[in-house]
Amino acid sequence: MDTHVVIMAGGIGSRFWPMSTPTCPKQFIDVLGVGKSMIQMTVERLAPICQLDHMWVVTSADYISIVREQLPSIPTENILAEPAARSTAPCIAYACWKIKQKYPDANIVVTPSDALVIDVTEYRRVIAKALEFTADSDSIVTIGIKPTRPEVGYGYIHAIHSDEEIQKVEAFKEKPDLETAKAYLADGSYLWNAGIFVWNVRTITSAISTYVPQIAEVIEEMSKAFYTDSEEATVKRLFPTCEKISIDYAVMEKAPHIYTIPAEFGWSDVGTWGALHTILPKDSEANAVVGENVSMFDSTGCVVHTSSLKKVVIEGLDGYIVTEKDGALLICRLSDEQRIREFHD
Amino acid sequence: MDTHVVIMAGGIGSRFWPMSTPTCPKQFIDVLGVGKSMIQMTVERLAPICQLDHMWVVTSADYISIVREQLPSIPTENILAEPAARSTAPCIAYACWKIKQKYPDANIVVTPSDALVIDVTEYRRVIAKALEFTADSDSIVTIGIKPTRPEVGYGYIHAIHSDEEIQKVEAFKEKPDLETAKAYLADGSYLWNAGIFVWNVRTITSAISTYVPQIAEVIEEMSKAFYTDSEEATVKRLFPTCEKISIDYAVMEKAPHIYTIPAEFGWSDVGTWGALHTILPKDSEANAVVGENVSMFDSTGCVVHTSSLKKVVIEGLDGYIVTEKDGALLICRLSDEQRIREFHD
Repeated sequence: MDTHVVIMAGGIGSRFWPMSTPTCPKQFIDVLGVGKSMIQMTVERLAPICQLDHMWVVTSADYISIVREQLPSIPTENILAEPAARSTAPCIAYACWKIKQKYPDANIVVTPSDALVIDVTEYRRVIAKALEFTADSDSIVTIGIKPTRPEVGYGYIHAIHSDEEIQKVEAFKEKPDLETAKAYLADGSYLWNAGIFVWNVRTITSAISTYVPQIAEVIEEMSKAFYTDSEEATVKRLFPTCEKISIDYAVMEKAPHIYTIPAEFGWSDVGTWGALHTILPKDSEANAVVGENVSMFDSTGCVVHTSSLKKVVIEGLDGYIVTEKDGALLICRLSDEQRIREFHD
Repeated sequence: MDTHVVIMAGGIGSRFWPMSTPTCPKQFIDVLGVGKSMIQMTVERLAPICQLDHMWVVTSADYISIVREQLPSIPTENILAEPAARSTAPCIAYACWKIKQKYPDANIVVTPSDALVIDVTEYRRVIAKALEFTADSDSIVTIGIKPTRPEVGYGYIHAIHSDEEIQKVEAFKEKPDLETAKAYLADGSYLWNAGIFVWNVRTITSAISTYVPQIAEVIEEMSKAFYTDSEEATVKRLFPTCEKISIDYAVMEKAPHIYTIPAEFGWSDVGTWGALHTILPKDSEANAVVGENVSMFDSTGCVVHTSSLKKVVIEGLDGYIVTEKDGALLICRLSDEQRIREFHD
């Protein structure tokens, strides 16, 4: 089985300003204070099931140098630059056509670069199971996370219950309102869509050709330059002409043979400060702190993430985000984190 | 009239951490965001009534280079180093003995280096009036500030009411409790002690000799080395042997002929964050901001003072101090500012 991994790392992480900035977004940051960035943790997590020269990173042209620096063990030629953001379908198409040209039997895991997994062993077991399933079939597997709360921030996968671990997908569901999310949680057959896809390269290129032929045509044209000196220029010229559409809309909601594995490996997309607060270790007053020399007095339920500051003293804050990076500081109520984007426009 | 000014600049400003640190305390900081430090404003305020080579600064040996840098127009030899902090009586004795040796007819204003005056014209008129009064008499004038609120943070001067502008002092009063401060305010004959003294050099050296002879003896011995190459070494050896005592205890509460001028020139010792908040210009939500690129959202009654940060966003804070300097950050309720000293021990 010729396993490949495609890591999508094009996000700009605007919800985590100023910790995350367009210059250095969340996937490249040591969000958890563990000494590794999210993308480094993603590679580590997958390394036992995929050799490093079969790992591919698709990212914005702006982030190529960060990726090279943070992932020196991934071959430079496996780091693909999107000259413009075109959502996930063109991104995946570029990587998969490129892989197909050299590895026509590739079996591929596509994953975001900035999610957290707690139980890495179970994660690898689930991914391996999915890879086994797709290796010799035209099925697509999307990993579903068993919900632990009525989360309104994620899309859902509606599975058709069966006794098998791998279940047929009934439908994909948009982010629900709270009532619906509660019903999903109670029902038990609704799973969080983690954006982790497993397929073999024939299946996905064929599905893209069928459901978004415009993208397939552009990428086919691009592919003539793959692995040549003119690849960069050709991609720069053609890639931005792709339709901007997510893989979910483009393929997942249309293709047949979509399966899911309901998984429990402690997953989070770490998509909000609230999610980060939930994930991080907390002191007895429920403060989560990443940063050097931070002292909390008479404060509860805060999430603090500092980078350049040498000493921080916080007194009398309840339920706040305090975050600093490279000379920018944000102090904001956790309950108002959805306003962060407006603050730094 | 041979007017001299002695600026006492030895404070370590621990109440304003981290804006003010022992490395660079409050008097050397642009606390008000006007482009000048407190000591630079003090010199500017007095320059029209005292030539610059008759201005003297007494400071910690640690701050000599900061003073030279901030006050390049004051002769280097007028910047006196205290090798150890011995409160105000030895500090004033050192400066006044040194002045006496070269200027036996000097008439001297002694002032803190870190207070604010709003009405500088009135301030100069009052100081000139006091200087006129002390030039040919053995009187001491201490400037009294007419209280505008029942302040418990200042010592008081109890004046004997008269129709003259210059009034005899009945007594000095320690910092009062709130009840007493209210009574002082209602009474009208109690004034804030601003720590601004005016006397001629014969009067003060004679008073020190009478009331704190130990200090006078040490300084007399030191004075043999004044204006010689051995001054620094001699001061280093002898000055620390002085009794540690304030000029108020040592002289003001004992000497006869103590007078005050009840003054109204918008004075503040800027001794607390609350005082700074009162002084600074405020936006419509009563936020006072000194710093580059600070945005406030849904916040009221805050005082923000940043130095190195390039961008600051604050949301949802009511009545807080936010201050940063050289990589140290403090967030603290204004009502808890008395705890600041404990935070950075």
